[in-house]
Amino acid sequence: MEKIRVAVLGATGMVGQYFLHLLRDHPDFEVAAVCASEARIGQPLLEARALHPAGIPVQMAHLHFSALDARSLADLGVDIAFSGLPADIARGIEMDLANRGIHVFSNASSYRMDPSVPILIPEINAPHLELVERQLQQRKGFIITNANCTTTGLAISLLPLLPFGIKRLIVASYQAVSGAGYPGIPAMDISGNVIPYIDGEEPKVRKECGKIFAKVGPDGLEPAEWQVYAHCIRVPTLVGHLVSTHVELSESLLPEKVRALFDDFQAPADVAGLPTAPLKPIIMAAERNRPQPMRDVDAGGPARAAGMAVTVGRLEVEGNIVRFVNLANNLVRGAAGGSVLNAELCLRKGLIGR
Amino acid sequence: MEKIRVAVLGATGMVGQYFLHLLRDHPDFEVAAVCASEARIGQPLLEARALHPAGIPVQMAHLHFSALDARSLADLGVDIAFSGLPADIARGIEMDLANRGIHVFSNASSYRMDPSVPILIPEINAPHLELVERQLQQRKGFIITNANCTTTGLAISLLPLLPFGIKRLIVASYQAVSGAGYPGIPAMDISGNVIPYIDGEEPKVRKECGKIFAKVGPDGLEPAEWQVYAHCIRVPTLVGHLVSTHVELSESLLPEKVRALFDDFQAPADVAGLPTAPLKPIIMAAERNRPQPMRDVDAGGPARAAGMAVTVGRLEVEGNIVRFVNLANNLVRGAAGGSVLNAELCLRKGLIGR
Amino acid sequence: MEKIRVAVLGATGMVGQYFLHLLRDHPDFEVAAVCASEARIGQPLLEARALHPAGIPVQMAHLHFSALDARSLADLGVDIAFSGLPADIARGIEMDLANRGIHVFSNASSYRMDPSVPILIPEINAPHLELVERQLQQRKGFIITNANCTTTGLAISLLPLLPFGIKRLIVASYQAVSGAGYPGIPAMDISGNVIPYIDGEEPKVRKECGKIFAKVGPDGLEPAEWQVYAHCIRVPTLVGHLVSTHVELSESLLPEKVRALFDDFQAPADVAGLPTAPLKPIIMAAERNRPQPMRDVDAGGPARAAGMAVTVGRLEVEGNIVRFVNLANNLVRGAAGGSVLNAELCLRKGLIGR
Amino acid sequence: MEKIRVAVLGATGMVGQYFLHLLRDHPDFEVAAVCASEARIGQPLLEARALHPAGIPVQMAHLHFSALDARSLADLGVDIAFSGLPADIARGIEMDLANRGIHVFSNASSYRMDPSVPILIPEINAPHLELVERQLQQRKGFIITNANCTTTGLAISLLPLLPFGIKRLIVASYQAVSGAGYPGIPAMDISGNVIPYIDGEEPKVRKECGKIFAKVGPDGLEPAEWQVYAHCIRVPTLVGHLVSTHVELSESLLPEKVRALFDDFQAPADVAGLPTAPLKPIIMAAERNRPQPMRDVDAGGPARAAGMAVTVGRLEVEGNIVRFVNLANNLVRGAAGGSVLNAELCLRKGLIGR
Repeated sequence: MEKIRVAVLGATGMVGQYFLHLLRDHPDFEVAAVCASEARIGQPLLEARALHPAGIPVQMAHLHFSALDARSLADLGVDIAFSGLPADIARGIEMDLANRGIHVFSNASSYRMDPSVPILIPEINAPHLELVERQLQQRKGFIITNANCTTTGLAISLLPLLPFGIKRLIVASYQAVSGAGYPGIPAMDISGNVIPYIDGEEPKVRKECGKIFAKVGPDGLEPAEWQVYAHCIRVPTLVGHLVSTHVELSESLLPEKVRALFDDFQAPADVAGLPTAPLKPIIMAAERNRPQPMRDVDAGGPARAAGMAVTVGRLEVEGNIVRFVNLANNLVRGAAGGSVLNAELCLRKGLIGR
Repeated sequence: MEKIRVAVLGATGMVGQYFLHLLRDHPDFEVAAVCASEARIGQPLLEARALHPAGIPVQMAHLHFSALDARSLADLGVDIAFSGLPADIARGIEMDLANRGIHVFSNASSYRMDPSVPILIPEINAPHLELVERQLQQRKGFIITNANCTTTGLAISLLPLLPFGIKRLIVASYQAVSGAGYPGIPAMDISGNVIPYIDGEEPKVRKECGKIFAKVGPDGLEPAEWQVYAHCIRVPTLVGHLVSTHVELSESLLPEKVRALFDDFQAPADVAGLPTAPLKPIIMAAERNRPQPMRDVDAGGPARAAGMAVTVGRLEVEGNIVRFVNLANNLVRGAAGGSVLNAELCLRKGLIGR
Repeated sequence: MEKIRVAVLGATGMVGQYFLHLLRDHPDFEVAAVCASEARIGQPLLEARALHPAGIPVQMAHLHFSALDARSLADLGVDIAFSGLPADIARGIEMDLANRGIHVFSNASSYRMDPSVPILIPEINAPHLELVERQLQQRKGFIITNANCTTTGLAISLLPLLPFGIKRLIVASYQAVSGAGYPGIPAMDISGNVIPYIDGEEPKVRKECGKIFAKVGPDGLEPAEWQVYAHCIRVPTLVGHLVSTHVELSESLLPEKVRALFDDFQAPADVAGLPTAPLKPIIMAAERNRPQPMRDVDAGGPARAAGMAVTVGRLEVEGNIVRFVNLANNLVRGAAGGSVLNAELCLRKGLIGR
Repeated sequence: MEKIRVAVLGATGMVGQYFLHLLRDHPDFEVAAVCASEARIGQPLLEARALHPAGIPVQMAHLHFSALDARSLADLGVDIAFSGLPADIARGIEMDLANRGIHVFSNASSYRMDPSVPILIPEINAPHLELVERQLQQRKGFIITNANCTTTGLAISLLPLLPFGIKRLIVASYQAVSGAGYPGIPAMDISGNVIPYIDGEEPKVRKECGKIFAKVGPDGLEPAEWQVYAHCIRVPTLVGHLVSTHVELSESLLPEKVRALFDDFQAPADVAGLPTAPLKPIIMAAERNRPQPMRDVDAGGPARAAGMAVTVGRLEVEGNIVRFVNLANNLVRGAAGGSVLNAELCLRKGLIGR
């Protein structure tokens, strides 16, 4: 069967290049176009500075940058756009694309809090795809976003506790410099240092948690009413956001029970077997000094799903308090990989026609 | 007036060498002896590997290592011992010294939880010196400890909130590698990495907080009954422990009031003007991305008190919740400097005779 | 055909664990025994601290540590031992093994300068295998070493220039902390620092260069008489030794000619197609700011040969002076991988019987 | 006596802020004006981002940014401008200032190779001040530059060898990220990495060495005809450029003699006692694993001259070959401090009127 033609928007950026790698030899998608700033149009993709450790995929050596507009991409037969654009640029072009019938899977924050756009994490809130139907009543295509890179790992790590009523969440993050894109943080600022503030990040964690865990009501999403307190803090690591997590539940649980919930946690059947889905969305660290960015950032198999699992360690339970540390790959699970998995889910659910 | 003769125990270690620097040209104390392992006895101090960036103080170039036993130190006319010994070695020798009338100011954890030994932080719990009287009924000298390096900065940063009833504390630390001493953490383990576990550290934070803020009751200290949840986590910085701090109080406070409490906070009169006391025990960071280890680790003036102030930033208040980030120099305020200040307080209070 | 049974000596160390990974699913070799210190005997390999980023290979989960002596290994049917032992321990046991007929491929420096032991780099000095015949006249097995981790990459990068008479070599290295093994360098010493001295390293580079490029004469090897000046310097990188290289030749060459020599350089037919041999032993960096440890340390394909190629960049020629920068993976090409390739060559040449 | 009024150009940059610190409480100079980009005019200096670890000097809290033009600075009574401007901006304004009679001491490379402008290092080439007389025939003020940050330390470390005829120099540098200014190198590029290329740096080292060691001839400077080969390489350190140095002399020297030359080396009388001059321009490292950026970057006393001495270690002599490693503070000796010392020399020599 022919593959679906996709475009990668922002292909000179960090997230854009991770999209390229995750889409290399993809069973369902084929990168038919790459876009970046206007000055790049017509230039070979290979001339872009490589930001993924494995460089620009050789399978895409033939590609040249296309114009970043809906008509050009439609002319190239593109059905899906994966967007790693900066938020200010994403806003206009992503809506143009949707209007023209090109579905957008976006890492940009522009539409995350839009009531008709889901922040989709397939293991958590596939029912939010109902919003897509609403979008399709208004335009030919739809926009789906992945969550912020810090929120994503946190949200997945909370899944086993959902049935017991999460009331309050107090988290402190240890975020890698790649979360700021490229060039991002100057070495002079972060080498051997910690920066206890990341502009705009803490409100994102707070609001996105509410929306991701929202119920689908008659008038749209009804956000989860958790209290979320977050300190988002930069540390000198390259990839992998680690989060110290403190959860207050509505009821007390036995430690063994919580342990078993995490150990046995499985993704819903909807998600199992998608090309970029990890065998287990949550991997429990065997050692008490894990997860560690250096060792666990690529957790998740099979190979195509490396970096898609969240690693959880230090699990402790005391009455209605559950505490642990989680780690997610901010560029894969928390960015490009999240959107690729979202597109795979939509394809399986028939929302994308071949 | 003649200076008091002091010994530094563990002078080949990280904390021991910070003692040497803090005691250089001290107005009241004079380093008369240095001790380390048996193999060092008789060797020049200058041959020890320098672990403080400024090397071994030239003022101490004449010193040779003495035997680490109470009689030898008594023979050298030593009145005070500053101990940077490992906990297992400290236990025996520190008690020997006290029995012989040499007062011990220790960074070791051996006696921290002993009911007759105060964990002294002059700005917080000078009344705990009452325990010293009890010790002096049993032996000729006394033992006073400083708190764990992480607990110290945290405890000081809580001072302005004390009057409003602290109920619960949820903290996550960003601890520097120097906290593990020398050689400490292998570069292979921590470069570009985060290690979310430090052996024995979290229980220390929990228990020491209770004891430091204890009331003096008729039968000894009555620990504060706070709930303390701590994740103690190592990050790739060299010096300076930063702590994300979440406090639940018994009552709600207005943000402006809390802000003013922190801005105006002063040490008690007991402490003001001690040689190693900072002008202000808490310095409020002016910028929202501070404190940072690289920039704030030496906060505290005058010069002799560099590294003795705790820097607090990101102060936020929401009802009865107060949140902030604090940073303390783990080698100065959180170790050697803490004990030097303790000795200065005891001298002022007449507990040490000249 | 049945695989040859091999032992990995020093399997709790950095190099030992790289041996395990390089031998995983090897077409010709099967790890039948692992050895470490006496205290480990009988313990499962899986309980050793993992020092390779991918952990202990699951294919070896059944292994337990054996005693490190020749008889025990012979009883286990071991034909080859790969040694990642420290030099002082290696000296005795490696000779015992050879005497018993177990061939040793060693990363230890103990026998490198022994006149009957080759420092083998297959692309350079396969004829040195003649020494092995001499060894076999004296004992049942032989010892072959790989070169020091810094020398290896340097030596390979010089290959294209060999025909033009190398007279003098002036090099300065940028060596990763993994070169010091585990635990190796304390983070306190190397974070954000450079250490311009590595004990014993510079004489190794000097002497090993002479021996590697020796001619086989009637009385054994006749060392190359180059002048070699080396500064071996540690920098805060994890893996990958980079070397600034300045070569004086006996004759002047045209820049284009030198460029072509490097671009077109191929391994000799002897080596081509060995399982761990890279397609090209030298990869020329396309960009002027390469090679870089972060990007080029795993150069060399196919997959089994990742980290086996040397990357060369900054090639400049001025008369009889040739200058460049080279990078080799100190744990793969410069250690475990070098010895595995040596064993593969010996197998192909019939020096190891099945 | 009244202090000379000076301006600091580029006071929002790294080098500019080091100028501010070196001029704080200076006995002869007083910062009367600070300049940066046009958008800053009128803003308080204190609002600039602090790039020196000690922040903006409080002594300069009253300053506001002035316009960067010669007339404005003349109106403010400025006699000297210290320039930390980027080369492209420096070219025009520095000449304007000189034309108006404001003497320029510049860290910019714009005029370094101009035949009428000296690259002044007081310990080396004070006679080059003759060029200044030539400049003063053409305009009312003069321009004097300091050398490139890498060249400076190298040049000073060669001083003891000058009498013996330097023929050839082969160097490899280990340069800190601060050499690239702020924001400079992205953390993503240099954390745990080495970058073996710095744009434009190697030709600077080569040409500046020739000019710095030039003889003053009847028609101007006659460059030293040394062969200089440099690899300029970036490593993940913050401050301090270390250089592996290999020197070929015209004659052979005995090791003890070379050792004594370095040990006893003194600055010429011209320089001794200048406020920013170190007691000894070259400090010989006592330990074989020194100099190290972390430990030696602030070498040089008294306090005002911290960072002004060059540290040399690993000294080895073999016939006419002398080899060593040197380290200089690239922001102090190799930038702002170099120019401040140059101005102090000119003041002593009467080239600057009060």
